Amino acid sequence: MLETEGDLGLNRCMDTIGVGLIGCGTVGSGLIRNLPTANALIAERLGFGLEIRSIAIRNLAKTRSPLPVKVVDDWKKVISDPLVQIVVELVGGTEDSFAIAEAALKAKKPLITANKALLAERGLQLLPLARKLSTPIYFEASVAGGIPVLKALREGLVANQLLGLHGIINGTSNYILSQMAEKGSDFQNALQQAKDLGYAEADDRLDVDGVDAAHKAAILCFLAYGFLPAFREIPIEGIRHVTAQDVSFARQLGYVIKLLAIVRPVRPDRVEVRVAPTLIPVRHPMASVHGVFNAVGLVGNLAGPVQFTGRGAGPDATSSALLADLAEAAKNLRDNAPGPVLPRTDGKIQMIGKGESVGRFYLRLQVEDRPGVLAQVAGIFAAEKIGISSVLQPEAHGAGTVPLIFLLELTSEASLEKAVTLISKLPNSRAPARIFRVEDLS
Amino acid sequence: MLETEGDLGLNRCMDTIGVGLIGCGTVGSGLIRNLPTANALIAERLGFGLEIRSIAIRNLAKTRSPLPVKVVDDWKKVISDPLVQIVVELVGGTEDSFAIAEAALKAKKPLITANKALLAERGLQLLPLARKLSTPIYFEASVAGGIPVLKALREGLVANQLLGLHGIINGTSNYILSQMAEKGSDFQNALQQAKDLGYAEADDRLDVDGVDAAHKAAILCFLAYGFLPAFREIPIEGIRHVTAQDVSFARQLGYVIKLLAIVRPVRPDRVEVRVAPTLIPVRHPMASVHGVFNAVGLVGNLAGPVQFTGRGAGPDATSSALLADLAEAAKNLRDNAPGPVLPRTDGKIQMIGKGESVGRFYLRLQVEDRPGVLAQVAGIFAAEKIGISSVLQPEAHGAGTVPLIFLLELTSEASLEKAVTLISKLPNSRAPARIFRVEDLS
Repeated sequence: MLETEGDLGLNRCMDTIGVGLIGCGTVGSGLIRNLPTANALIAERLGFGLEIRSIAIRNLAKTRSPLPVKVVDDWKKVISDPLVQIVVELVGGTEDSFAIAEAALKAKKPLITANKALLAERGLQLLPLARKLSTPIYFEASVAGGIPVLKALREGLVANQLLGLHGIINGTSNYILSQMAEKGSDFQNALQQAKDLGYAEADDRLDVDGVDAAHKAAILCFLAYGFLPAFREIPIEGIRHVTAQDVSFARQLGYVIKLLAIVRPVRPDRVEVRVAPTLIPVRHPMASVHGVFNAVGLVGNLAGPVQFTGRGAGPDATSSALLADLAEAAKNLRDNAPGPVLPRTDGKIQMIGKGESVGRFYLRLQVEDRPGVLAQVAGIFAAEKIGISSVLQPEAHGAGTVPLIFLLELTSEASLEKAVTLISKLPNSRAPARIFRVEDLS
Repeated sequence: MLETEGDLGLNRCMDTIGVGLIGCGTVGSGLIRNLPTANALIAERLGFGLEIRSIAIRNLAKTRSPLPVKVVDDWKKVISDPLVQIVVELVGGTEDSFAIAEAALKAKKPLITANKALLAERGLQLLPLARKLSTPIYFEASVAGGIPVLKALREGLVANQLLGLHGIINGTSNYILSQMAEKGSDFQNALQQAKDLGYAEADDRLDVDGVDAAHKAAILCFLAYGFLPAFREIPIEGIRHVTAQDVSFARQLGYVIKLLAIVRPVRPDRVEVRVAPTLIPVRHPMASVHGVFNAVGLVGNLAGPVQFTGRGAGPDATSSALLADLAEAAKNLRDNAPGPVLPRTDGKIQMIGKGESVGRFYLRLQVEDRPGVLAQVAGIFAAEKIGISSVLQPEAHGAGTVPLIFLLELTSEASLEKAVTLISKLPNSRAPARIFRVEDLS
C-alpha cells in the first residue's frame, strides 16, 4: 500500500521531512498507524509534514500488516537512504540498537529512540558521540510514554535546581501493586491478571524486578543532574517480595506501597539513585496514581513540587512521544537549528556509596508470641540510635508466631543493617521478614 | 548595585543576551533575585547568559530594593534601548501592557509576559500582530505558574488531538475550597484566612469570582484548539455561593467541589469553555489537588489522560516560567531560529451558544418538610426527561424547611432551566438554593 500525499494529511506543496524506521513491532506499527492524523496537526501547527520513506525489519517474511513504503531487512540501507533525514530506532535491546544509533549519528542524521535500555546502559558511549558529532538524540518516548516529562526537565524547568525527583515509572508493577491494594490480591494472582490483560510480558523480569524502572531513573538522573550513573551500580529492588500482608499493614499505618524510583542529590557532588518498593503517605498525590498509570514528581528550587501523571506505555502513548520528537527534530532541521542541548557526561558527580543512603524504613519481623520480644527489639534499635516512629502488633489469636511491624525514623542503611543482624540473632525472633523504604515526599 | 559578571553566574567570554524589564513589583523583583542562580544553570545547559540591562517602573520614587541596572520611568526607553534584545512585560492590566507589547513587537523584540488578562482579553489584536511581524510572544508564566503546561500543549503533545481539558487554575479559590472541605469552614472564614496568609488580595474579585481562571482557560483553549474565545462570552461563575453545607453534601455523594475550568470540543467547530464550581469524584487525581496548588488535566487521542500538578502562583514559581521563556527566547535569538509557532486566530471554531451546554448537575433545594414534595419535584424532572442519579434528604429534626439534594444525569442547560422554573413555582418549594456542575472527568 503506497500512501498518497492526501493519506499523509499534507498539502501538496508543503515541505516534508523524510523519516526512516528501523524496527517495526507494536510501537513502530502504532507510529505508522497514527502518523496520518498527527501529520494533519503538525502541518497546521508547524507548517511541514513527516513522511516515512524507508523501513527496516529483521525478518521480511514476518511482515503482517501492509506497510506504507518499501521494506528492507538491512537497517544500513535505511540510514544511507538519501531520502531519510531522521532515523527512528525501535529495535530494542542494547546491541543492534547501539550499532544503529552510532551509524545514524555518524551519518549526521538525528536519532529518535524509545529505547531506555540503550540510553541507560550505553549512554556513556552514545551521548558523548552525539555531542562530538553535533547530531542530536531525542528520547522523550523512553520515559513515561505519553507524559512529556523529559521536555519539561530539559526546557520548561531549565532554570530550576532540582532538589529531588521521584517516579512511578513502571506501569506493570504499578498495576500489580494497585490490584494488591484494592482487591487484597497476593502478588502471584495480581501478576497473572496483569499478564492476562496484556500489561505484563511473558518474561516479566524487566518490569517486576525493577530493571525497566531503573533504566528510566538513570535517564531522569541524566537530564536532572547532568550525570548518567553506571547502570550496574544502581541499587534495584523489585516487587516480587511485597505481600498482601505488607500492603495491608502499610495501609493501617497510613501508607501505600509503590515501586518508586528516587533520584536525589545528597551532597553537591553525590546523587542517590535507586528503585525499590517504597511506602508513601496515602494522602500524597503519588498515592492516587493507580493501575498502569505513571507519575513523575520533582521539586524545583523555583517551581516547587511539580507532578506529571499519565500513561507510561502502549503504542499510542509511545507514538505521542515519538511524534513530538519527530516534530521537534524536523523543525530544527528545517530551521537549521541545533537540537536540544544535552548535559555533558564527564562531570564530577557520582552516586553515593553502598550503605551511605539515609532514610526511613518499614520493618516487618516474624517473632514468637512470648513476653519480652518487643522490649528486646526496641532495645537493639535504641542501642543503634534508631528512632521508632510507629509500632504495629496485631493480636496473635493463638498462632505460634506473630508479625511485629516497625516504622523507623531516619537512619543510615549501615545502622539499619547492624540492628537487623542483631535482631536476627535474638532467640525469639526470626530474621526480619521484610524491609521496605519509606518516603514522606514533599 | 551594579552586578559584575561573576554575580550573574557567567563566564567572562560567554554570550549574554540583553533583557529589558518593564514593571518591577513582586514578580519582577523575584525574577531579579532568582536570575543569578538560574543563569549558572542556563549557562551550563545552553551556553549563554541572560543580563537585565534596563528596567522601567512607573514611579521612580517608589524604588525600595536596589536594582541591578539603571531604572527609568518611561518604558519606551527600555524597548528602544539597543542593548535590550528581549522585553519582559510585568505591569499587568490590559491598557499599558497592550501598548508595551505592541511596541516591543513593532521593534521586533520578542516579548515575554505573565499577563493572562492581556492575552485573554486582547489576544485577538496582539497574537495576529506577533504573527504578522514574525516576532514571538512567550507566555508560559501566564497559566499555572511553575507547571510548564503551555510548553507541553505546544510541543510535548503537539501530535495529539485534544479530546478535552480541565483545570484547577486559581490557587486562591482552591485554597478556600480546600479549607472548607477539610475544616468545615464557611466561605467567609476561609476567604479571610486566605487573606491573612497572603494567598488572596485585598480586592478578591479576580480570584474568587472566577475571572482569573477564565483568563487562563481562554489561553489554554487558544493553545489546545487554535481558538481564542471572545472573553466576554465565556460563562464564568465564582465560588462565593458555595456553602459549607454544599461541600458536605457533595462529600456524602462521593464528590469534592473545585473551581474547575473546562475547555472541551463538542462538535468539530464548537468548543465549550467555562469556569464554575464543579463537583468532581473524590477518587479522581484532581480531587487530591489541595490548597494553593493548581492542576491541568487533559485527554489526548494518543497520550490518553495526562495531569500536571504544581504551584500556580508566587514570585518563585512565576520566575521558573519566566526564566524558561527567557532561555527559550534567547536560544532562538542565538540560533537565529523562529520562535514557537502559535495557532492562527482566524479559524472557524466558535464557542457553543448559551443553553447548549450538556452536563450533569447537583441541585440543592430548600423545601418545606411536608409529604409529597419529593414526588412533585421528581415528577417535574421526569416530565423534562431528566434522569436522577442520586437523592439525599437529611433528616429534618423538626426544622420547618429541609434541604433536598439531587444529582442529575446528563441534561442540557436549557432543560434544566425549564425544570428549575417549574420547581420554583411549587407551593412547598422555594427556588433552588444552589445548582452546581458535576464532571466525572476521565
